[in-house]
Amino acid sequence: MPKSSVDVVICGSIGLDDITTPFGSVKAALGGSASFSAVAASYFAKPGMISIAGTDFPEEYRKLLEDRGIDLTGVAIQGKNFRWQGSYEFDMNEAKTLGTELNSLAEFTAEVPTSYESAPVLLLANTDPEIQSNVAARLPNAFTVLDTMNFWITSKQQELINAIALADVLVLNDAEARQLCDEVNLVKAAKQLRGMGPKYVIIKKGEHGALLFSDETCFTAPGYPLEVLKDPTGAGDSFAGALAGYLATQPNRDEPTIRKAVIYGSTLASFCTEDFSTNKSAHLTHDQIEERYHAFKTLSHF
Amino acid sequence: MPKSSVDVVICGSIGLDDITTPFGSVKAALGGSASFSAVAASYFAKPGMISIAGTDFPEEYRKLLEDRGIDLTGVAIQGKNFRWQGSYEFDMNEAKTLGTELNSLAEFTAEVPTSYESAPVLLLANTDPEIQSNVAARLPNAFTVLDTMNFWITSKQQELINAIALADVLVLNDAEARQLCDEVNLVKAAKQLRGMGPKYVIIKKGEHGALLFSDETCFTAPGYPLEVLKDPTGAGDSFAGALAGYLATQPNRDEPTIRKAVIYGSTLASFCTEDFSTNKSAHLTHDQIEERYHAFKTLSHF
Repeated sequence: MPKSSVDVVICGSIGLDDITTPFGSVKAALGGSASFSAVAASYFAKPGMISIAGTDFPEEYRKLLEDRGIDLTGVAIQGKNFRWQGSYEFDMNEAKTLGTELNSLAEFTAEVPTSYESAPVLLLANTDPEIQSNVAARLPNAFTVLDTMNFWITSKQQELINAIALADVLVLNDAEARQLCDEVNLVKAAKQLRGMGPKYVIIKKGEHGALLFSDETCFTAPGYPLEVLKDPTGAGDSFAGALAGYLATQPNRDEPTIRKAVIYGSTLASFCTEDFSTNKSAHLTHDQIEERYHAFKTLSHF
Repeated sequence: MPKSSVDVVICGSIGLDDITTPFGSVKAALGGSASFSAVAASYFAKPGMISIAGTDFPEEYRKLLEDRGIDLTGVAIQGKNFRWQGSYEFDMNEAKTLGTELNSLAEFTAEVPTSYESAPVLLLANTDPEIQSNVAARLPNAFTVLDTMNFWITSKQQELINAIALADVLVLNDAEARQLCDEVNLVKAAKQLRGMGPKYVIIKKGEHGALLFSDETCFTAPGYPLEVLKDPTGAGDSFAGALAGYLATQPNRDEPTIRKAVIYGSTLASFCTEDFSTNKSAHLTHDQIEERYHAFKTLSHF
């Protein structure tokens, strides 16, 4: 098989978001699981996106993604762009969805460019689990990370479980893990989730960090204590993107490597929340990223 | 001043608790902030309690405390014992108080035995902040740790702020920090709280661990991922007790020492939740404690 043109394939949505938080608001800002993930992954490896955007998708956003070295061969252009309207209260823990316009996302078929087929890592960012399974089938040898959300647990649970079976790493948040397993205790929920197939299960806990479960060990990544938290939208996608991007550069994906990937994920997630959309996360230097990665060490060393 | 007969003075309540959780229930179990704290502290140093119990306080509980080497000279016996009835739902995050009978606790005057006066460490476990201030005044040279709860923030806020001014370490949970400071962001709240006097502020986050704030640094202690969590009552008191007990054995109380104390606090808090009352936390070996302390390292190392 010819060498892939990209290191990490990222399948998910491209959105235009209207967001209000106690710290401001934005209209038609760059959003969507694939956008946030690809921007975060781009600091580590060359991402290729599989997604769909509308003919109204702004040229400046396309340029932003391309400037970050993201391959857009897999992005279809059709109809009106997917849009999401949401708001957050002061505690910033949960988005309140004010409106969703699927538009062209409803027609998303996730065509996989031939040039992506031999990529070493695949990130199935949050999207329809049937699409996730189809894309996974096209990259059977890729190390696969799957992210999801409560909407799919409610509406397509069996399809989601089928997709999870194809993943090496499952990423979801604490409420989602509890909902999917009908189990309050996260240690027990993680065992159930690993029983579905993935070798590694990562449970994100927002400001409280993340838990990584593997065979017999557990790893806890702290949340980065931020004074300025403007907009949590995309933090989870940034987490998964940086994790997958870092893993694409590594010769093996053993537990110590996944731990480091979790910290890089936490690093990009924390930057993402410091401003709206990708306003901060798309404009970082490698020094900023390494500095925060090492701050995570200082934060948890005793 | 003659050498103190104890290493760590612990002022707080002695209770008899009726507790129901999804995993069982107990009646008239040993409870109260001073009991849990002293039991946890006793693995590190000799605690002396300042508290009040009723004439109905069971002999077996007195024996349990004495068997752990806890000095009870400062415990007054009078009237009927303080009682608390509470229950927890599946998420175990917050106790629902079903009933409180103050009984003799309403008459608590916190007499400080002369033999306690030169103890190096004082733990003002959760109790009336006016009492906390009075006791602190009697041990002006002690390194002082203060724990509190939402009840005092609501009912005696100014008295609590006065007591906090006398503490070297303030321990409280995340909801309490937010309430006392009227500030959602914990980093900002910790700054405000340090401005009230304490050099160190520790914000407990239940299953999510704890944050330690000092001059310019922050330390995050993970929550220990437990499969069995039967009853969270007393976890916070156990945290403060182990922290204070460990500090009583240390020649200095600099930031690296406080970090270790936070981990010992987290260790005893995690054991406390594994069974009702002090059923587990009063019957540990030093090996069990050291093993879990080191598990915290494995848990957070990357």
